[in-house]
Amino acid sequence: MTTPDRAKKAPRRTAERILDHSLALFNRYGEPNVSTNAISADLHISPGNLYYHYPAKEVLVNALVSRYEQALAEALAAAGPTDDAEGAWNLVPGLLRLAWDYRFLFRDLNDLLTRNRQLETRCQAALALQQAAIRERVLRLCVIDGEPLSAEEASALSVSVVVLLTYWLSYEYVRDPRRALEPDNADAAVRHGTRQVMALLWPYLGAALRRQLRPGPTPDRGPAMPALQPPASAV
Amino acid sequence: MTTPDRAKKAPRRTAERILDHSLALFNRYGEPNVSTNAISADLHISPGNLYYHYPAKEVLVNALVSRYEQALAEALAAAGPTDDAEGAWNLVPGLLRLAWDYRFLFRDLNDLLTRNRQLETRCQAALALQQAAIRERVLRLCVIDGEPLSAEEASALSVSVVVLLTYWLSYEYVRDPRRALEPDNADAAVRHGTRQVMALLWPYLGAALRRQLRPGPTPDRGPAMPALQPPASAV
Repeated sequence: MTTPDRAKKAPRRTAERILDHSLALFNRYGEPNVSTNAISADLHISPGNLYYHYPAKEVLVNALVSRYEQALAEALAAAGPTDDAEGAWNLVPGLLRLAWDYRFLFRDLNDLLTRNRQLETRCQAALALQQAAIRERVLRLCVIDGEPLSAEEASALSVSVVVLLTYWLSYEYVRDPRRALEPDNADAAVRHGTRQVMALLWPYLGAALRRQLRPGPTPDRGPAMPALQPPASAV
Repeated sequence: MTTPDRAKKAPRRTAERILDHSLALFNRYGEPNVSTNAISADLHISPGNLYYHYPAKEVLVNALVSRYEQALAEALAAAGPTDDAEGAWNLVPGLLRLAWDYRFLFRDLNDLLTRNRQLETRCQAALALQQAAIRERVLRLCVIDGEPLSAEEASALSVSVVVLLTYWLSYEYVRDPRRALEPDNADAAVRHGTRQVMALLWPYLGAALRRQLRPGPTPDRGPAMPALQPPASAV
């Protein structure tokens, strides 16, 4: 039984392995700096074998974007109904982790868009999905001057959140190009980005929700700042 | 008198003309896609003449960054003292206009940073200058729950503003790659980015300042949104 199964799975496994290695190399060196030959060398397979699965680097990139879209759909679904505050908070590190896992996309997005027209509509759709998910939660969970946000205020706030989610890693990269995108910075980058988005949303939380999210006061902090910490479950 | 003066100025003028044309071409096509040969052809000068003034594309880029730094210093000085609310509002479109004028830098910043180590410290300094200028004004002019912001809250808010200022054009580019960075989109891009930053700051304005900035209500809008409009002098 095992042998035919394994034989049948081999091509799919090779295709998946190629994607795994390509993603790691793109993330590490930037997509423009990684050739298909470098990918096949890294995998110890022939360029012809790579070509059989992915006849151009653009095909590889598009396959990785399909994975990203799948992961985005799962992250949005995991946030639960729009009135679930904890699900909403979890969405922020979830989306930042996704941006981290596919950081090659965001690192060279403008360059990739110039060369790959298919990416254009897919990136726009990915941003629109994130914005809609955040906007729905902002409308349910945020207040200003004791009132729910207007449609336009909710749109503006959700755009700001999406810009932060999308470009947080780029900002960290400018601040520290040699370390920001290295694998061991993953948790710190997600944590800092989460804190940043929470600081953005903080003035829009009702007093009840603020109390719910605020840990006990600590001696070296003013009363407002502990609330900028994500709840323990969110990171 | 005129002839010797003109003769003396000619080399400087050529150097300046090269910078003007390079900036226009970089902004239009992206720095990685413009060769020094393309620049000399655009100027109708020989590659050797260009080489005499700027022996490498990196030297050209660094000279443009010097111009950018000069313009940044002027924009920050023009904002006046830190407690001048109108100066603070004017700073936002001023910095966005600067990002527009040098949009090639922000469009391919990660790629440029990888290739040009000198840019690293200069970009970090430019971001730090902007953040400090915004943070000082946030500490003077913003409030939350009727109190001035804590040091940490002011830092977080000023980082969010800097991320928006730095990446707004990239965001517009993803949303509409064929039009976002074309010259005739300049005013709209600055206006949209200004609105976006103002929406970010809106919850932190005291009631008195909100009243000062809020135009009369218009029939098709809720009471909050007119306040997200910049004052007439700010755009």
